[in-house]
Amino acid sequence: MSISVTKRSEDYARWYTDVVKKAELADYGPVKGTMVIRPYGFAIWENIRQIADRMFKETGHVNAYFPMFIPESYMRKEAEHIEGFAPECAVVTHGGGKKLDEPLYVRPTSETIIWSMYKKWIKSYRDLPLLINQWANVVRWEMRTRLFLRTTEFLWQEGHTAHATAAEAEEEVRKIIEIYRILAEDYLAMPVYVGKKTDAEKFAGALYTYSIEAMMGDMKALQAGTSHNLGQNFAKAFDVTYLNSENKQEYVYATSWGVSTRLIGGVIMTHGDDKGLILPPKIAPYQLVIVPIWRNDDQKSQLMEEVTKIKIQFQKEEIRYIVDDSDQVSPGWKFNQWEMKGVPLRLEIGPKDLKKKQVVLVRRDTGEKHFVGFENLYSVVKQMLNDIQTNMFEKALAFRNNNTHEAGNYADFKKIIAAGGFVRAFWSGDGKDEARIQEETKATIRSIPFEQNQKGTCFYTGKPSDTIVIFGKSY
Amino acid sequence: MSISVTKRSEDYARWYTDVVKKAELADYGPVKGTMVIRPYGFAIWENIRQIADRMFKETGHVNAYFPMFIPESYMRKEAEHIEGFAPECAVVTHGGGKKLDEPLYVRPTSETIIWSMYKKWIKSYRDLPLLINQWANVVRWEMRTRLFLRTTEFLWQEGHTAHATAAEAEEEVRKIIEIYRILAEDYLAMPVYVGKKTDAEKFAGALYTYSIEAMMGDMKALQAGTSHNLGQNFAKAFDVTYLNSENKQEYVYATSWGVSTRLIGGVIMTHGDDKGLILPPKIAPYQLVIVPIWRNDDQKSQLMEEVTKIKIQFQKEEIRYIVDDSDQVSPGWKFNQWEMKGVPLRLEIGPKDLKKKQVVLVRRDTGEKHFVGFENLYSVVKQMLNDIQTNMFEKALAFRNNNTHEAGNYADFKKIIAAGGFVRAFWSGDGKDEARIQEETKATIRSIPFEQNQKGTCFYTGKPSDTIVIFGKSY
Repeated sequence: MSISVTKRSEDYARWYTDVVKKAELADYGPVKGTMVIRPYGFAIWENIRQIADRMFKETGHVNAYFPMFIPESYMRKEAEHIEGFAPECAVVTHGGGKKLDEPLYVRPTSETIIWSMYKKWIKSYRDLPLLINQWANVVRWEMRTRLFLRTTEFLWQEGHTAHATAAEAEEEVRKIIEIYRILAEDYLAMPVYVGKKTDAEKFAGALYTYSIEAMMGDMKALQAGTSHNLGQNFAKAFDVTYLNSENKQEYVYATSWGVSTRLIGGVIMTHGDDKGLILPPKIAPYQLVIVPIWRNDDQKSQLMEEVTKIKIQFQKEEIRYIVDDSDQVSPGWKFNQWEMKGVPLRLEIGPKDLKKKQVVLVRRDTGEKHFVGFENLYSVVKQMLNDIQTNMFEKALAFRNNNTHEAGNYADFKKIIAAGGFVRAFWSGDGKDEARIQEETKATIRSIPFEQNQKGTCFYTGKPSDTIVIFGKSY
Repeated sequence: MSISVTKRSEDYARWYTDVVKKAELADYGPVKGTMVIRPYGFAIWENIRQIADRMFKETGHVNAYFPMFIPESYMRKEAEHIEGFAPECAVVTHGGGKKLDEPLYVRPTSETIIWSMYKKWIKSYRDLPLLINQWANVVRWEMRTRLFLRTTEFLWQEGHTAHATAAEAEEEVRKIIEIYRILAEDYLAMPVYVGKKTDAEKFAGALYTYSIEAMMGDMKALQAGTSHNLGQNFAKAFDVTYLNSENKQEYVYATSWGVSTRLIGGVIMTHGDDKGLILPPKIAPYQLVIVPIWRNDDQKSQLMEEVTKIKIQFQKEEIRYIVDDSDQVSPGWKFNQWEMKGVPLRLEIGPKDLKKKQVVLVRRDTGEKHFVGFENLYSVVKQMLNDIQTNMFEKALAFRNNNTHEAGNYADFKKIIAAGGFVRAFWSGDGKDEARIQEETKATIRSIPFEQNQKGTCFYTGKPSDTIVIFGKSY
């Protein structure tokens, strides 16, 4: 297999699929729409999962596991919910060799089954808040597969919380969307707009949805995480009330929120280049690859002695590394392969370096080469990994900001969207206006940012507006 | 909800379900046969998972994720496999609002889908061994539900490895069953017999199966983990060959192996008593519960000041603790509740203790009380947690050994089995003999232990035998 991918400028979609396959992140499964997450891709997911899980637990959430089979009648209890999800569901009609009395939906999301359990568990205000998260697989039928971005089955976490008051539920959805922002920006080095979705784009069954939205390398938007305020909708559908401190029955307030393996698609498209993947050090399975370069066995054994010393120190310093000392391929081939896999730093060491007591460090993000003496190696590597993490975020932020334009009227808007990029503009339209713009330009309102403090004129309706929104085409 | 359970001596099955529900480990899901793993039960699973995952990774395995939908035609490719699993499967017939051309089985285990991918990935000896594990949910239709032990959906890990030689595959299944033994004995404090299963009890599609078998509190056997040598069966079914170093095509050798949430059932039934659950410290979500005891607010605030100091130190020492300082219930009620939940150690502290600069430590496994001065607290707690872990294993081992009897003839055998317990006896029968014994006594051969060095006479056939086996009734 040659280690090269289609150029982004040639065919971005093909570039993406090439990278996913050549970096061995994922593969197509045998059933249309399904995906196999290969070990290297899964190791990235494990790192993301660990970071998110820690943040959830630090904010009082606990994990649990609910069954994936949902009775059809449960799905139907919340009208908007079934309408939104039924067309995407996989349905089990037979089990244990018999036709079932009631079809079972494979969970597309777990609100209904979880709220049927919350009805059993929530009696009084002392049972609240209930802050449960689950890491699970979910199924949403897809015809146009895109690895990590759109697959019939994917992995995610879904938080489902129950609260005594509307204020607490609001506090929760805000807290979570901030955790998602931190996950995206501080760990995935992926800048995001944080804000509210329009009604057209909210979760089926929610009062409203908050999201983080990122700009990919082709200037399209990726919805990377959502946090829904469900109000009392699901509590009413499943009749979940609690006895408040004044001894009155009251419906419980709900939130739900999730991020998925889609984040890996976001990382690929935020940072990747024509050589392949570039991984932020904080989530890279290997932060550094060691490539010793020799001409004969004698040189090899001398080098490997030094490499062993370096390995021991990296272990101590908790730097994730891999040594590529295979005899099968040339150093040049190895360089290409590990660049394809996006390892942030490459450490080369050859006989001459050994004499000079130095190594060569090569940054994946900039391609810069540095000669570093043995004595400074560990502090330099740590500093360089930090620099790479920061640089990747700043580069992505500059790219997004440079490709986010303001539009004063619809003609300008159309030009910007056609050229690629986000539009940041005053808005006073309604759902119909939004639908018409989508029809004409394929762009939708991706985010109504939280921070608003300006007044102006809507680019579309010409009416006064105090709301700036972000438009873009999306995945 | 009262904090008491049915006595084990009265009704063991009811005792078990009471403990699962009152310790809030799990609950029944809405669909018959399904289970909700509640946060406290899931926290135990997270600890078990982390321990096992570390051991897998230390022995060179990597994690991945494969789709859960398996085309019916794939299941049919290995004849024994489909025969064994088809009657237990859930079948998806509709997706995305349409009837599917080919029904999809929800994975009961993933050999078929994984080997269909290995066909794509394995070309030469350089691609071997392939050592992949997956943590996933699986579905096997069950009519008689038993929480953790027998549910339609459960969580597990399934390892699927590919090797160049039969010898390497054998080494792998042995390595894994040893990891399972360590997991069971050193972490769950659950002694196990390690050995081979008879043909009647092996995995559908395997050459043979190794297992770990534990004795539960009612003297029945629990198969707690299995490691299968699949030979070339799946490689032949999916036509997976590799080019060996002599440039010849050869079928690949396979293994698969798994442990599941069933282990939690094993922990409950190995250690539980009439007060509820008893958890080994190494897997307990909380190793210690702190219960301050006060009569007035003044006392409470003084106590909580000291408790804060204790907490900080426990955090430093990485002791998992919880503080129960609620005003709602009495200390006695708290004691019962945390005993029900099986927390290994309880730390009580009241105003008198504060004056004496001491706390009371109460062991869950023995009920022993110890007065311990502040200055020694952390080393004493650590030592006590170690002692509890060791004592729990030794107690369970003695119970198993005391209830494993030798039988020289079938009459004795029947007496022992009827009274409850395992029989350890020489065996030279065949599958038909085994089936007849099962029909007459409900006991089966649970294990043919690895270590064999005696000769004797089969208790059933009277023929000479060099094989000792373990019989028992099983879950």
